[in-house]
Amino acid sequence: MATTLITGGTVVSSTGRAPADVLVDGETIRAVLAPGSTLLGHDLAASVDRVIDATGRYVIPGGIDAHTHMQLPFGGTFASDTFETGTRAAAWGGTTTIVDFAVQKTGERLQDGLAAWHELAAGECAVDYGFHQIVGGVDDDSLQAMRGLVDEGISSFKLFMAYPGVFYSDDAQILKAMQVSAETGLMTMMHAENGPAIDVIAEQLVAQGKTAPYFHGIARAWQMEEEATHRAIMLANYTRAPLYVVHVSAKQAVQQLAWARDQGQQVFGETCPQYLYLSLEEQLGARGSEWGDFEGAKWVCSTPLRSREEGHQDHMWQALRTNDIQMVSTDHCPFCMKDQKELGLTDFRAIPNGIGSIEHRMDLMYQGVVTGRITLERWVELTSTTPARMFGMYGRKGVIQPGADADIVLYDPNGHTSIGVDETHHMNMDHSAWEGFEIDGHVDTVMARGKVIVDGGEYLGSKGDGRFVKRGLSQYLA
Amino acid sequence: MATTLITGGTVVSSTGRAPADVLVDGETIRAVLAPGSTLLGHDLAASVDRVIDATGRYVIPGGIDAHTHMQLPFGGTFASDTFETGTRAAAWGGTTTIVDFAVQKTGERLQDGLAAWHELAAGECAVDYGFHQIVGGVDDDSLQAMRGLVDEGISSFKLFMAYPGVFYSDDAQILKAMQVSAETGLMTMMHAENGPAIDVIAEQLVAQGKTAPYFHGIARAWQMEEEATHRAIMLANYTRAPLYVVHVSAKQAVQQLAWARDQGQQVFGETCPQYLYLSLEEQLGARGSEWGDFEGAKWVCSTPLRSREEGHQDHMWQALRTNDIQMVSTDHCPFCMKDQKELGLTDFRAIPNGIGSIEHRMDLMYQGVVTGRITLERWVELTSTTPARMFGMYGRKGVIQPGADADIVLYDPNGHTSIGVDETHHMNMDHSAWEGFEIDGHVDTVMARGKVIVDGGEYLGSKGDGRFVKRGLSQYLA
Amino acid sequence: MATTLITGGTVVSSTGRAPADVLVDGETIRAVLAPGSTLLGHDLAASVDRVIDATGRYVIPGGIDAHTHMQLPFGGTFASDTFETGTRAAAWGGTTTIVDFAVQKTGERLQDGLAAWHELAAGECAVDYGFHQIVGGVDDDSLQAMRGLVDEGISSFKLFMAYPGVFYSDDAQILKAMQVSAETGLMTMMHAENGPAIDVIAEQLVAQGKTAPYFHGIARAWQMEEEATHRAIMLANYTRAPLYVVHVSAKQAVQQLAWARDQGQQVFGETCPQYLYLSLEEQLGARGSEWGDFEGAKWVCSTPLRSREEGHQDHMWQALRTNDIQMVSTDHCPFCMKDQKELGLTDFRAIPNGIGSIEHRMDLMYQGVVTGRITLERWVELTSTTPARMFGMYGRKGVIQPGADADIVLYDPNGHTSIGVDETHHMNMDHSAWEGFEIDGHVDTVMARGKVIVDGGEYLGSKGDGRFVKRGLSQYLA
Amino acid sequence: MATTLITGGTVVSSTGRAPADVLVDGETIRAVLAPGSTLLGHDLAASVDRVIDATGRYVIPGGIDAHTHMQLPFGGTFASDTFETGTRAAAWGGTTTIVDFAVQKTGERLQDGLAAWHELAAGECAVDYGFHQIVGGVDDDSLQAMRGLVDEGISSFKLFMAYPGVFYSDDAQILKAMQVSAETGLMTMMHAENGPAIDVIAEQLVAQGKTAPYFHGIARAWQMEEEATHRAIMLANYTRAPLYVVHVSAKQAVQQLAWARDQGQQVFGETCPQYLYLSLEEQLGARGSEWGDFEGAKWVCSTPLRSREEGHQDHMWQALRTNDIQMVSTDHCPFCMKDQKELGLTDFRAIPNGIGSIEHRMDLMYQGVVTGRITLERWVELTSTTPARMFGMYGRKGVIQPGADADIVLYDPNGHTSIGVDETHHMNMDHSAWEGFEIDGHVDTVMARGKVIVDGGEYLGSKGDGRFVKRGLSQYLA
Ligand SMILES: [Zn+2]
Ligand SMILES: [Zn+2]
Ligand SMILES: [Zn+2]
Ligand SMILES: [Zn+2]
Ligand SMILES: [Zn+2]
Ligand SMILES: [Zn+2]
Ligand SMILES: [Zn+2]
Ligand SMILES: [Zn+2]
Repeated sequence: MATTLITGGTVVSSTGRAPADVLVDGETIRAVLAPGSTLLGHDLAASVDRVIDATGRYVIPGGIDAHTHMQLPFGGTFASDTFETGTRAAAWGGTTTIVDFAVQKTGERLQDGLAAWHELAAGECAVDYGFHQIVGGVDDDSLQAMRGLVDEGISSFKLFMAYPGVFYSDDAQILKAMQVSAETGLMTMMHAENGPAIDVIAEQLVAQGKTAPYFHGIARAWQMEEEATHRAIMLANYTRAPLYVVHVSAKQAVQQLAWARDQGQQVFGETCPQYLYLSLEEQLGARGSEWGDFEGAKWVCSTPLRSREEGHQDHMWQALRTNDIQMVSTDHCPFCMKDQKELGLTDFRAIPNGIGSIEHRMDLMYQGVVTGRITLERWVELTSTTPARMFGMYGRKGVIQPGADADIVLYDPNGHTSIGVDETHHMNMDHSAWEGFEIDGHVDTVMARGKVIVDGGEYLGSKGDGRFVKRGLSQYLA
Repeated sequence: MATTLITGGTVVSSTGRAPADVLVDGETIRAVLAPGSTLLGHDLAASVDRVIDATGRYVIPGGIDAHTHMQLPFGGTFASDTFETGTRAAAWGGTTTIVDFAVQKTGERLQDGLAAWHELAAGECAVDYGFHQIVGGVDDDSLQAMRGLVDEGISSFKLFMAYPGVFYSDDAQILKAMQVSAETGLMTMMHAENGPAIDVIAEQLVAQGKTAPYFHGIARAWQMEEEATHRAIMLANYTRAPLYVVHVSAKQAVQQLAWARDQGQQVFGETCPQYLYLSLEEQLGARGSEWGDFEGAKWVCSTPLRSREEGHQDHMWQALRTNDIQMVSTDHCPFCMKDQKELGLTDFRAIPNGIGSIEHRMDLMYQGVVTGRITLERWVELTSTTPARMFGMYGRKGVIQPGADADIVLYDPNGHTSIGVDETHHMNMDHSAWEGFEIDGHVDTVMARGKVIVDGGEYLGSKGDGRFVKRGLSQYLA
Repeated sequence: MATTLITGGTVVSSTGRAPADVLVDGETIRAVLAPGSTLLGHDLAASVDRVIDATGRYVIPGGIDAHTHMQLPFGGTFASDTFETGTRAAAWGGTTTIVDFAVQKTGERLQDGLAAWHELAAGECAVDYGFHQIVGGVDDDSLQAMRGLVDEGISSFKLFMAYPGVFYSDDAQILKAMQVSAETGLMTMMHAENGPAIDVIAEQLVAQGKTAPYFHGIARAWQMEEEATHRAIMLANYTRAPLYVVHVSAKQAVQQLAWARDQGQQVFGETCPQYLYLSLEEQLGARGSEWGDFEGAKWVCSTPLRSREEGHQDHMWQALRTNDIQMVSTDHCPFCMKDQKELGLTDFRAIPNGIGSIEHRMDLMYQGVVTGRITLERWVELTSTTPARMFGMYGRKGVIQPGADADIVLYDPNGHTSIGVDETHHMNMDHSAWEGFEIDGHVDTVMARGKVIVDGGEYLGSKGDGRFVKRGLSQYLA
Repeated sequence: MATTLITGGTVVSSTGRAPADVLVDGETIRAVLAPGSTLLGHDLAASVDRVIDATGRYVIPGGIDAHTHMQLPFGGTFASDTFETGTRAAAWGGTTTIVDFAVQKTGERLQDGLAAWHELAAGECAVDYGFHQIVGGVDDDSLQAMRGLVDEGISSFKLFMAYPGVFYSDDAQILKAMQVSAETGLMTMMHAENGPAIDVIAEQLVAQGKTAPYFHGIARAWQMEEEATHRAIMLANYTRAPLYVVHVSAKQAVQQLAWARDQGQQVFGETCPQYLYLSLEEQLGARGSEWGDFEGAKWVCSTPLRSREEGHQDHMWQALRTNDIQMVSTDHCPFCMKDQKELGLTDFRAIPNGIGSIEHRMDLMYQGVVTGRITLERWVELTSTTPARMFGMYGRKGVIQPGADADIVLYDPNGHTSIGVDETHHMNMDHSAWEGFEIDGHVDTVMARGKVIVDGGEYLGSKGDGRFVKRGLSQYLA
């Protein structure tokens, strides 16, 4: 197998940084060494197949995006990125592992959904991938099937407190599923919004002629997220299930998470770049005099973008520092404006929910380092180390250490990245939710399991480079 | 310089564990490698001076005890461990770095205190040592002197809200010192107990004939710690100083810390093994029918041991899991019963305050892993990695990575340690506060900057092995 | 019309007490006067039809029990007190007004339920009565009907988050009903327990053979009450509806109420004597070695009796002092053991839920004055003044002032009351939930709208004395 | 003695309102009667000396201002209102009782201060007056003297956590005084600001040339009030003393009070009109481009006016609704601009602290009724009923009921009051802190102990009408 020595860089972990060389042997990291080409008199550089000069760059574990939705069926259409296009965009952005969601909709069999997702992804991916299991129909059959998930390398499942008739679980179902979670160690992931209440509000808004994308944000009020978050926490308190709340966007929801953790519960929260940077006023309400025109549809996602005036964005950054929020995923779920978002031209409820960010997460979060919002180490922790620990991949993923998969990114703090559809843009979308964002850093080189797949502005990988990752139980439980 | 290869062990960091070998070159770690004696065809084992077989053992960064008081003058006597005896006991217990407190008492010059402590420690220590600076007299002179501390490798200072006339600072003094803290980045460490109020209570108790050690705990009520903790937090909020509260023992104080952190303040807390294991009822009230006899003097320390019935101990363990408390030090401050603790035979106020634990911290905390209170990784984080980050030593200390000092402990999870004065006991005390504690693990081998100083039940080091560590600013601020 | 002068007593209000005479003219209070039989030279005693000597007694506004269920259909049987027997028992106990619940079950028309309840009560009652409206089926029809309730003198309605299929409303329904509440000023009353989740737990317990009454308390865990309370609060926060949570029993639910109020929400809570005095361990688990035998069925009610070890009872008393709980009702819902409670001999789920206390509320709460739990004034406030204000009757009820209905109780602090089926017991039950309770006080005389209906241990009233009270909007909103 | 019948008005209490007549006999209320001039056939109107027609007016218990400082020595000058001028202004504004502060400064004897205050007030006052005792020097002598205060009709004392060298008590002193409070039932009143810390900040500001009145507000940051409030609460928690925090102005301090009360502590808070209406930006920073000119000196008081942008004022109104703040006093402490406020022309620290509001409290708070901030009943509760209960005067004061002192105000909701030095202005000040405020209501008639002292825009009373009120222990403790 080929050997590579990455020299001269600064290796960054979740706890610190140090100048170090990394020796890769085949797909695996073989050693981390003090800089310098010799070891005990042996000339390492001369002994390897390839030397990569990382001088001036950060050498970090490849990004892990633990929340993506390739090809997700939603509202009569499908998320526009396939496993092929989406994972390639991930690679361009320095993400070398994703965890996507296999889907059981209400009325379907869980096992069928999982099989279908394996089929969709197998042989298509640019980077490694795992699956969470969406459980859209908790019943005796699916509860039994859930007990087998760990053996299949799937250590987490997701429930929805929203989307009645599609994914929704009521509290009786949630309780039963959480009992399995407590029993097996499977992590319960929760979409925490009070869907039945939101649907009433949305219906009333539309009845009043308030059909613009802006009202998507109005309908999904912070109270609906706060409430569902508390409810999930209390059901987890009763069942003793570990709980991970996805795409947290309301500061009040964060306060609930903080409260639960301070009382000793195993409760975690994820946020996404959109909840750190974008807002109800600026994006959902874009381009209109009062509440925006259809342009806002680009940013229709759930939970929704929230009001900057209410201070949600600043609070989310703070929560990243205080560890009241533990990690950052994208909830990548791209839809084109044409033919897709446009389904909701006259009714925001018909706009497919989702934003595409998989390519930009590492950059957008690095910009938080530049602006002093988070430390360099916290960047690595939020985007790679904690995702790996949270979802049972640490050791193979999320860290640069001997024995780990050689998923390595060389990140240049002196580089620059301009985001936009006419810039480097590899997601299968006709627009960018991040158009115009400028990043003071750059993903130079991406190695996935020992193979350089992005370098010098070129994609060097191939379809099928990525393999399914069997995950273990969460390593983050304390 | 001599080279050593530690093979076959499991390297444990604050985020995970992995089988790995560690190559030490002189005083420094040169490489961390996948297990196996060859690298790129080179036979490493054959190339080193010494191979240490770590099979079956955890290979962890040496313990860092960030709160010790060698030779501390207190109440007319001195802490009974010298830098020589105390650091040797530390070594026996797997601790390879201490941070002791240089003392400026009220009325003395800060610079003089620091110089005196350098003199006491230089050439005496078995392991590396740093200093925090106690500021017992905040005035223009000492405030100026504090500004120079960072250059001397001292990045933290301690104030006391207790002990009027000896160490006490009033709120005006605290405010001024915290302003220097915010300005320079020096960490403000706080002994958070309302001393003036406690002294009133203590005086009243003694006037009522309540002179036994038990009443030391009664006098220093939890309200006195909670109050001072809140006050320190709010003064830190105003000045924007980073704050580290030492020896937290009351659950209500923890709640204040959690509250401050959830609001985004840079506030941290340390606890000690005594607050996790020992109690008002069992130790301070030992051997008496109602409130104990003088035996309790062994456990007179401040903050005091607290009531188990009130649930403080369980809450402290929980806080270690939730990271509302970030690290564990000993507050090692040993006094013999004879001639020392006995000073307070007829008045608990005259009992020198302190417990000796420096030798047992790593073991006692490991027992928390055995009983499921904390994870193995959290053990390393609480005892080594976070102390290093908190106090500006990370990279050299607190981690096993290339470039770091070769401070390494081989810990045997299948070993056993019995604690007691007639067992292995190396602290200069005529009793043990931990008599009878049994640990399901054992410190087998201790390497300090590349030199094996404890191995096979023998002490192999010499006086003066330890050197002064110049520390940088805290690396834990988020 | 007849005139009466009540002389020599101490009039107690919610804010204070004073010696004063009360002049009653027909059904109404005509004046409150300084003691002494003359006024401006006029001899009042000589001018009235009757003088009642209240020397040594407290003269208080008649009790108002704002939560009763006469003849309630539940689980295939009916609450055993009719309006005739129940209100007569109320009168014996010093309660001169009740507010019962007209019932709309799921699938029935709201108007029909209300009409049926009017029919049940008319001409039967010993004391005045009003109605809250249970809305067991929120739909367009009932929402419209709710808008007409205020005009009918019904200013509050109750929703259930428990009892699916009978009374249960889902969150969409609750939201819509609360919107009507906010729009009309109707008070939203909430039975706050997560019924769907509780039903799962109960089913699992029964499947495990845990069928004793004790498990009723286990199934309805505090988390289920806390969760529903928070959910109701947050839906009220969104809709801006005033919210009144009935029969609060968990200390964690109280904490939610306190939190909501401290943030400025119009949120209120009621507790009942059973949650202040009785417990899971002592009553629900009565007479059995481990978890009690069927004797516990006497105390099966929802929310359930809670664990004394967990401290709920003490916390409820505290909440009465801090005004985190505003008033005390009985939730009077009596069932006999024979033929009724016995329906659940083999399955606690079939035990009709309810305890009978209407006769003892004033006494039981007065005992809290005797034991120092509450003040004398707070007793009047909790049992009469606040119920009147909360539910729009103040001025006519809840206060001794000119123009008010002459609903007056003479309470003897030197009297004594023994509770038990063989003592004075007027509720239509074959047992007493309060058997053996001893009260250091006694209801001597009860006047209802000017007529003495209880005096000297005799019942002097007649069926039909009580009339329907048209209530206005809450006067307690701040 | 003369008799008066007040007819046709609406009597308002803290719990409700009702049309009623009030019969006054000499100094005392003799009866409250249903409207109409006859009682039991007796013609009341014909039997009294005087009939006052209150048609269209609210008949309320006279205002009680529980926090005033007549002739207070402060910063080398004296508050400009004497007991004569100040209480006359009170009368004009509908306040019929004040509680002023007898002063013991540090170094003086408590008994001397009290005697001096009796001398200042005796025979001078327009309305009744009581005293709180300022304890500016807690020592054995004053602690002993405190034990005798209740017998002298003084049931509360005030400590200062600010003003070192003048009034300041350290925590040891506070603890001892609170022990006496717990033992005797005396209410502990607290000026809760961290004076030693504030003095450092103020000194630094002045050293930077920031000498304008605006910086008085900057120096006394909210953290200083929050901290002291928490400290006082925790010392009260330990000693079990009842605690009343004066002039609360920071929302964070309110949150501390709410927290303490929710945990069952007997803790209360008072605010003042200035903290509800005025702000740092508008008043303290008045008339300057950046931070105001000396005009702001009019509003220099402690605690200071706070930032409207930070939301303190809105939060204080909310706290009045939620009862997290229990009552409203003025902290009336007037100083003229000329010769008094001007002492601080070049240094805000030399500006005498105080605002004069005694004349306007009832009006300013009534305006809160007009704007919907509080209810009519809450107005009476905040300004009269609760002050009476809190400070042991209820029954005689704070309520319209037989036996009470005939302190009665007729308030016209259709009247109008313009505030300003050239309008009706009776305080001995050369300016008004409330210049330009317009009130939609008017104090028409003021009766004090049966004598009409203000009516028809005329002052009808005389010096010495007011008498010392011996107060009992607080009646508000629950
Ligand atoms: Zn989702
Ligand atoms: Zn998603
Ligand atoms: Zn200390
Ligand atoms: Zn210490
Ligand atoms: Zn109910
Ligand atoms: Zn009920
Ligand atoms: Zn003050
Ligand atoms: Zn004052």
